[in-house]
Amino acid sequence: MVGVLLIGVKGAVATTVLAAAAAAKAGIDTPLALPSQCDPAFSGIKFPELTQMVFGGFDIVTESYSAAAAGHGAVPAAILDSIKEPLDEMSFYPVGPIDDDQTIRGLSDAKPMTRAKLAETVMHSIDAFKVQWGLSRVIVVDVSSTEAGVPPHQSHEGLLAFEQALAENSSSLSASMVYAYAAIKKGCAVVNFTPSPSFDIPVLRALALDCGVALAGKDGKTGQTLYKTVVAPMLRQRALKLEGWYSTNILGNRDGAVLHDPAHRATKIDSKLSVLEQMLGYSDFEHQVHIHYYPPRGDAKEAWDNIDVSGWFGVPMQIKINWLGVDSILAAPLVVDLVRWMVYFQNAGEAGVVASLSSYFKSPVGTTKNALFEQVAMLHQKVNDLEKR
Amino acid sequence: MVGVLLIGVKGAVATTVLAAAAAAKAGIDTPLALPSQCDPAFSGIKFPELTQMVFGGFDIVTESYSAAAAGHGAVPAAILDSIKEPLDEMSFYPVGPIDDDQTIRGLSDAKPMTRAKLAETVMHSIDAFKVQWGLSRVIVVDVSSTEAGVPPHQSHEGLLAFEQALAENSSSLSASMVYAYAAIKKGCAVVNFTPSPSFDIPVLRALALDCGVALAGKDGKTGQTLYKTVVAPMLRQRALKLEGWYSTNILGNRDGAVLHDPAHRATKIDSKLSVLEQMLGYSDFEHQVHIHYYPPRGDAKEAWDNIDVSGWFGVPMQIKINWLGVDSILAAPLVVDLVRWMVYFQNAGEAGVVASLSSYFKSPVGTTKNALFEQVAMLHQKVNDLEKR
Amino acid sequence: MVGVLLIGVKGAVATTVLAAAAAAKAGIDTPLALPSQCDPAFSGIKFPELTQMVFGGFDIVTESYSAAAAGHGAVPAAILDSIKEPLDEMSFYPVGPIDDDQTIRGLSDAKPMTRAKLAETVMHSIDAFKVQWGLSRVIVVDVSSTEAGVPPHQSHEGLLAFEQALAENSSSLSASMVYAYAAIKKGCAVVNFTPSPSFDIPVLRALALDCGVALAGKDGKTGQTLYKTVVAPMLRQRALKLEGWYSTNILGNRDGAVLHDPAHRATKIDSKLSVLEQMLGYSDFEHQVHIHYYPPRGDAKEAWDNIDVSGWFGVPMQIKINWLGVDSILAAPLVVDLVRWMVYFQNAGEAGVVASLSSYFKSPVGTTKNALFEQVAMLHQKVNDLEKR
Amino acid sequence: MVGVLLIGVKGAVATTVLAAAAAAKAGIDTPLALPSQCDPAFSGIKFPELTQMVFGGFDIVTESYSAAAAGHGAVPAAILDSIKEPLDEMSFYPVGPIDDDQTIRGLSDAKPMTRAKLAETVMHSIDAFKVQWGLSRVIVVDVSSTEAGVPPHQSHEGLLAFEQALAENSSSLSASMVYAYAAIKKGCAVVNFTPSPSFDIPVLRALALDCGVALAGKDGKTGQTLYKTVVAPMLRQRALKLEGWYSTNILGNRDGAVLHDPAHRATKIDSKLSVLEQMLGYSDFEHQVHIHYYPPRGDAKEAWDNIDVSGWFGVPMQIKINWLGVDSILAAPLVVDLVRWMVYFQNAGEAGVVASLSSYFKSPVGTTKNALFEQVAMLHQKVNDLEKR
Repeated sequence: MVGVLLIGVKGAVATTVLAAAAAAKAGIDTPLALPSQCDPAFSGIKFPELTQMVFGGFDIVTESYSAAAAGHGAVPAAILDSIKEPLDEMSFYPVGPIDDDQTIRGLSDAKPMTRAKLAETVMHSIDAFKVQWGLSRVIVVDVSSTEAGVPPHQSHEGLLAFEQALAENSSSLSASMVYAYAAIKKGCAVVNFTPSPSFDIPVLRALALDCGVALAGKDGKTGQTLYKTVVAPMLRQRALKLEGWYSTNILGNRDGAVLHDPAHRATKIDSKLSVLEQMLGYSDFEHQVHIHYYPPRGDAKEAWDNIDVSGWFGVPMQIKINWLGVDSILAAPLVVDLVRWMVYFQNAGEAGVVASLSSYFKSPVGTTKNALFEQVAMLHQKVNDLEKR
Repeated sequence: MVGVLLIGVKGAVATTVLAAAAAAKAGIDTPLALPSQCDPAFSGIKFPELTQMVFGGFDIVTESYSAAAAGHGAVPAAILDSIKEPLDEMSFYPVGPIDDDQTIRGLSDAKPMTRAKLAETVMHSIDAFKVQWGLSRVIVVDVSSTEAGVPPHQSHEGLLAFEQALAENSSSLSASMVYAYAAIKKGCAVVNFTPSPSFDIPVLRALALDCGVALAGKDGKTGQTLYKTVVAPMLRQRALKLEGWYSTNILGNRDGAVLHDPAHRATKIDSKLSVLEQMLGYSDFEHQVHIHYYPPRGDAKEAWDNIDVSGWFGVPMQIKINWLGVDSILAAPLVVDLVRWMVYFQNAGEAGVVASLSSYFKSPVGTTKNALFEQVAMLHQKVNDLEKR
Repeated sequence: MVGVLLIGVKGAVATTVLAAAAAAKAGIDTPLALPSQCDPAFSGIKFPELTQMVFGGFDIVTESYSAAAAGHGAVPAAILDSIKEPLDEMSFYPVGPIDDDQTIRGLSDAKPMTRAKLAETVMHSIDAFKVQWGLSRVIVVDVSSTEAGVPPHQSHEGLLAFEQALAENSSSLSASMVYAYAAIKKGCAVVNFTPSPSFDIPVLRALALDCGVALAGKDGKTGQTLYKTVVAPMLRQRALKLEGWYSTNILGNRDGAVLHDPAHRATKIDSKLSVLEQMLGYSDFEHQVHIHYYPPRGDAKEAWDNIDVSGWFGVPMQIKINWLGVDSILAAPLVVDLVRWMVYFQNAGEAGVVASLSSYFKSPVGTTKNALFEQVAMLHQKVNDLEKR
Repeated sequence: MVGVLLIGVKGAVATTVLAAAAAAKAGIDTPLALPSQCDPAFSGIKFPELTQMVFGGFDIVTESYSAAAAGHGAVPAAILDSIKEPLDEMSFYPVGPIDDDQTIRGLSDAKPMTRAKLAETVMHSIDAFKVQWGLSRVIVVDVSSTEAGVPPHQSHEGLLAFEQALAENSSSLSASMVYAYAAIKKGCAVVNFTPSPSFDIPVLRALALDCGVALAGKDGKTGQTLYKTVVAPMLRQRALKLEGWYSTNILGNRDGAVLHDPAHRATKIDSKLSVLEQMLGYSDFEHQVHIHYYPPRGDAKEAWDNIDVSGWFGVPMQIKINWLGVDSILAAPLVVDLVRWMVYFQNAGEAGVVASLSSYFKSPVGTTKNALFEQVAMLHQKVNDLEKR
């Protein structure tokens, strides 16, 4: 069995993952396909199945898992009804917010914690989780709401400075960093499915190498950015010049409410903006990404894109894409797949950022270019080199 | 210099190609990018440039090139004004329709020809074209309107039967087959940019091998099918189950008028339908492709797609794509690129169908699966094999 | 209490109406607004409420009401669960198809009936329905699937010829005509919510006048045509010239399956095509309406429109509308409202076609122009006339 | 002849109006339809034609009319070429910006003016314009960019305070107010086609009554709000409950650049938000309007709307509208029509705000509800009253 602890475990993505695990264990016949199962290239790998995973997690929200899942509205009611009990028996470790961020504070009555207290709570919880379920390995996945940005700080550079900042409850450390620190110290692989910084500061990436811990992130690629990464190469492949790409998103779940706050939204939009230039190889186009909190939609995230391109003689053409997705239903299978891959890479002895998982993320840490292109190019190179021998 | 003869040379695609060549030779500063120029992988290949190509072609329509181009409306008027003279000096070889197809007959006053006479005219024209411009090599590209289907016939199987059918003016031979036959006999590489059968019958593919002639086709992938080939793999990569894909197209150019005839439309739609199953690996979904002649749009072809997918727990989601393209502006660069590749492959001594150009076509002849996937898989295999040595 | 008999009572629209009545009578708190309630102009009228109506109907399909409603998927499962019993106790009068229409025959195992037998069955059923529920008045509403067209015939002109054709089971009479005949003979007001001919032949309109029966129809305006009737006047009001209007519809319910048959579809499309010309006052534009049976959608009918307009200097502009409706949820309130209006007009002593209900229909019988415009114009006229006195 | 002076005369809307007038006078055969010509109700009114109007105007931008029109890209180049001379001979009165608004200042090198100086310049220009062209009547139309908001101030209440603020160059007076003041003082009817305050302060509306001057405004209804005013009543007419309406706009002309500034944008969005509540009669829905400056589009303004509605049983449905308009082509005919109506109402002796022109405006001054509905209701009332006599 593999243990999985989710940060933001009462959120829409996490409760969808937990419901899927409960449904799988209960033998309910419902579609639960995983990307890694659909690609014949991976048919030889022995991945852990959903039924071989034990789930739990952290949150400042304390309502029961079944109540939280029902509120998010992503998992069908008929499924939820039949798994209420096993769902509510999953492990939960309550935490508090670490500072006075009003947007986060508004989500719960939980009392604030110092950063040191949070780190301690997380580490104790990991131990308790292992003991309770008899686990040797735990993977930690961050699926919490996007943080407001934190400016670069010297406490992000070295372990001594980091731990002193932790002791002093310095605002230079965000919650996601504290979670990542605690997880790495406990030898847990960390997946950052959010745009928050988490382990993406030098001190924690170094610590992971020291501790032999694998990392993957950041910001799961589930919707608009996903299709950007297939449409942009298509434009390039047809020599169509991108003139402008206007993207807007409406979503009404808790993530949407948090992103309504400009500081939190900025972190998210930064993560979405960089992708086009890397794929196209030029930057003289207008690119806008907007996110709006729109309550009528709940978890049913919608995106609309207007893409202006020009062809021969500068003739203008347009492509419009309207994406009506359900955020958690798109994200949850990727979360489980990433757990499977982390087990695979941990078994293979990998430590530090696992760059080859970049196709799962909007802002792949540890890679500087589009991974698929790179992979093909690398294979070409390898063939050429080998043939020369 | 490379000679290029276009079948349907007064059409929107062909006149756009000719206008681009004239503009390039006149040194006009206007965007004329080619896909093969945008991919660094090909930066080492010495392709012929547009300015190194001489164009001409066949048509049953006899108006001047500049008048035809103006009527199609794809090339901006300001460009056309400045290249009228060189455009109208390009070679033109009038032909007649080969039978009583009323849809085709309605496009022109040209007197019908027998199939034998058409073959003879094409062969004489190729000779004359070579002599006039001092060319050693001519590539023939079919960009004419889609034919009505022709049922399989024994004259498609062997050369003797084919040539007898030709002599007897048998309706078992379509015009595109006659053109392809004449071109292959004259040692010209043939590109079939249309859904018509052309060289895609056993006798002509065998003849091409005998004559050392390279072939590529069929049905240039410029719009709706193009994005299908990137969206479908994306769905598979995210384990999203396709439930239905409804595609509709509106276009108002001469191609649209020809496709308005059900027999011609069937050929086109067949070519568009097969693509999804091959990419997804399953077929239990609804797939519809509709094409409607809608005059207000002229060459500005528009497509709308509604894509129904389901995720975990069978939760339904939708993607809608609205493509506002200009048909000839999308197709013309591919035509020129295919000429470049045919020169490359002819130089490399290839004969018969060139399978590696399949990404240019909706119905790649000589391949049975999605080429990009295959290419990556093949490279993987090659690396594995080589590493084992 | 008012009795309502629905033709096609096991269909999606009818079962939605019945479910609403059951929910209202059970006091369930769920939105059931009616158009006539939303317009302050009608606040003074004493309409019958849903709870004051008794429902029943005819169908060739014999499954229970609750099973039929569940299959259509329009009424939420939670609502259906709580009204199963009262729903299944509503009156049902089984009938058979009148001829060999394979599309209709495929929907049920019911044995065919002669036209005379059908008329007799309908008349007996109306009597039985009145007796069972102690009703003095019954309204008949046709919400069955669209019929294939019937060519004009002399039996549509006079009562003698009609009744002889009925006795001879002549194919010149469609099922909807037979139902309308039987209802009118029994003194019931008839609403034709379908594009089928029903009472829209001279003999039946005359019969209704003779019998003092009010009529209203035809083809309920619920989706694409509804917004056409507001967008077209808007274009006219802004002096925007319509160049083309391309409309496509995808639907996956039983109506969609029936409309998949070209003969049935023609009846429907005819009904949709006429609306624009009447509103715009000119006809030099391209207008296309397509309907496609697309099973993944069930009752969730979708429409897409591309509207090409031009303004000053002929500058082209476009409007695109994408309508994601649920057919029965849109139609059912109109059906109930029409019952309310028929009661009102019957009380007022109206007989024959009630022209002032034309805004409910795509092809208003008894009116030749857009009703709203007419109404305003008529009011203007009335004011002018009155002021002159 | 009627004189027309446009504020912001070098902008896209104004130069389109001027080009139309020049084309009409030159007898060029090009579509120039006006709404008032398309409504048979007005066929008896003797409106002035475009050829009977003389145009001129004010701007801080000094490039020639033909250069400005070419830059905006709305009028086709072929038309512009043939009217360059008469266009550039139209009257132009340069002005300066009145304060330090950086967004406006960035558009031109013109030296700032005091408010008093601006008022004086406008009044002198009106006199000069009348003399130059021998005009007895001049209409002033504001088509300049949207101003930043000005908070309410006591100088807006009485004439003494207003004129003192003018003399003191107080920032309580916006430029649009100064223009309106000067025009009214000179006896000119004023049309405010922008969302700026202009005459919509008590002091100026009182002054207009004193001076016998007719006023109409504000904010021409040309695109998104236009279709809102037909779709919202349609929803109400079908008892569909609005749950949310998300509207976004992308535009790339000078107006777009000015609206990029949050202070200016706020004025515009306020003007767009109020419309739905008034028409629907309830306000418990989410309504968002966003405007983004998106240069690739130039004057080709695009809007996208997602409309969430619910029907019986709360079943959710969606409507999506994508509007690809050309801003100036939509606005210019309304400007000319409003000039025609102002002449009509001035002739009829009307002074103060003309409420019956409200269908031309997003934020009709002098009306509190939807005008069409009101008009119908009023007519109903009138008929009832008259019939009672």
